[in-house]
Amino acid sequence: MSESLFVGVDLGGTAIKVGLCNAAGNLLRMHEGPTQAAEGADAVLTNIAAYVQELVPPGTTEWDAVEGVGIGIAGFLNIPEGIIDFTPNLPFKDVPVKRIMEEKLGKLVKINNDANVAALGEAWGGAGKGIANCVCYTLGTGVGGGIILNNRLIEGFTGMAGELGHMSIVADLEAIQCGCGKMGCLETVSSATGIIRMAKDAVERGDRTTLSLVEGELTAKDVVDAAKGGDEVAQRIVSRAAFYLGKSMATVAIVVNPQRFIIGGGVSKAGEFLFSQIREAFDKYTPENARAGVEIVAAELGNNAGVVGAAGLFLRA
Amino acid sequence: MSESLFVGVDLGGTAIKVGLCNAAGNLLRMHEGPTQAAEGADAVLTNIAAYVQELVPPGTTEWDAVEGVGIGIAGFLNIPEGIIDFTPNLPFKDVPVKRIMEEKLGKLVKINNDANVAALGEAWGGAGKGIANCVCYTLGTGVGGGIILNNRLIEGFTGMAGELGHMSIVADLEAIQCGCGKMGCLETVSSATGIIRMAKDAVERGDRTTLSLVEGELTAKDVVDAAKGGDEVAQRIVSRAAFYLGKSMATVAIVVNPQRFIIGGGVSKAGEFLFSQIREAFDKYTPENARAGVEIVAAELGNNAGVVGAAGLFLRA
Repeated sequence: MSESLFVGVDLGGTAIKVGLCNAAGNLLRMHEGPTQAAEGADAVLTNIAAYVQELVPPGTTEWDAVEGVGIGIAGFLNIPEGIIDFTPNLPFKDVPVKRIMEEKLGKLVKINNDANVAALGEAWGGAGKGIANCVCYTLGTGVGGGIILNNRLIEGFTGMAGELGHMSIVADLEAIQCGCGKMGCLETVSSATGIIRMAKDAVERGDRTTLSLVEGELTAKDVVDAAKGGDEVAQRIVSRAAFYLGKSMATVAIVVNPQRFIIGGGVSKAGEFLFSQIREAFDKYTPENARAGVEIVAAELGNNAGVVGAAGLFLRA
Repeated sequence: MSESLFVGVDLGGTAIKVGLCNAAGNLLRMHEGPTQAAEGADAVLTNIAAYVQELVPPGTTEWDAVEGVGIGIAGFLNIPEGIIDFTPNLPFKDVPVKRIMEEKLGKLVKINNDANVAALGEAWGGAGKGIANCVCYTLGTGVGGGIILNNRLIEGFTGMAGELGHMSIVADLEAIQCGCGKMGCLETVSSATGIIRMAKDAVERGDRTTLSLVEGELTAKDVVDAAKGGDEVAQRIVSRAAFYLGKSMATVAIVVNPQRFIIGGGVSKAGEFLFSQIREAFDKYTPENARAGVEIVAAELGNNAGVVGAAGLFLRA
């Protein structure tokens, strides 16, 4: 009998990526095509089925070895029932995706939200490979998260477990309001958006910084590059993002005590310059017993984490 | 065939409590006797065996129905191997308790630490009955904790998961050092010890408070009673303990998203006066989605939680 295979689908607003994984979490190959969201939910689901069958043609030995198809979706989902309640960026409302796709493909289908699936991908086939307890942070427009304990994704009572960007961590006196309405959430300082906001504030109030010389829209990379180049204003901004990340990890370490923290997303490309400052804050606030042997490492799969994690829904979630 | 039964043992420094539970988590009856720690580890283990067999006499149908004996121990344990590495308050060092007790009793034996076992007891047979995801706080000399997700106790990489008293939560500018060596741990303000410390500080610096009239050693109950009676200094102390408890729960809610928080230990006897202030801080710092339907309730089993939880090691851990 041939090795079990799993297909992962990353359903994005403009492109659908599909990938074939083996049971060891290795991504064997990928394929992708346009989402064509404007043509409606039916067309999008037909596209998913087509791209999956282009990736693994039905009738082949490989197709027969596919045990399931996992789909990662940005939206509000009824995960156990496999229904998309609502998606902000796609034309789905109350669509029983699991049932429809199982009929189209003749394979078991599972759905889960994109942040959880990306965390699962890193844990399963990326920087968390072989680690039973790990916590993933994704530093992008917001701060996403995912927690894997005993090899299983933690979802919680209402599916909010691991929404690490909304930890209230910034000291009250320096807290600003988050998009979620609360004050002092981690993502107000440690996301790309937070870093850019702090940089714009500095430029607007006339701080002497090379950031005032940047032409066009400021990016988080501009701020990191200026900090690496010695700009003190930029250094303070990056240090603040790193400090609160490390402090939030100290709290996570006491709550769930993972073996490894995995940091991905655009901001994580700042590399060791950022990571060393995160570790410093983590060490400062974490008791020795929850810190010994705990690693803080960079994500490895980049944009493929979603595809690998979606395939992994059949093994780990 | 008769119903499965489970024995729980709460191994304390002065007394050993044993209890018989059924599979529904109901405590059928208890028994206890002196620990006699001064006579050494062998004598203590012989006592445990004797009290267990006084609780459920061998040869009876009940004895035959006992599927296992769980033991909760305050100390440093190798849980999977069932070995006590070291206990601060008992004469154990590198003792293979599981093996020895299995030989003495002819039943399966499991060990776990006392805080985890108490949390498991509340979750299994107390205020968390029927709830798959709950988090327990014990407000005593320190602040203990335990986290149950999907009906299982979370232990983490080095067994530090759920050590909620050591969350770094107090704002840096008002943080003091904890017994663990770190600054600003929750138990510096929300344990009985923390409350007493703040009260003594107030009396020593000459604050006008009825606490200065208390004869003998101040207790946390004195402070709570004074606060309930309208003493503003005492109210500030209790409010601070409650505020940081509620704020720590906001963080826990984002990390593991439990359905219920259960608060036990001596300080929790302050009741609704304390709980309403905890809820206020929790609501302030928790995003709506992690807060909807989440309850903060009092523990129900009191000192019996350890016995029930130890018995529960065979069902839930």
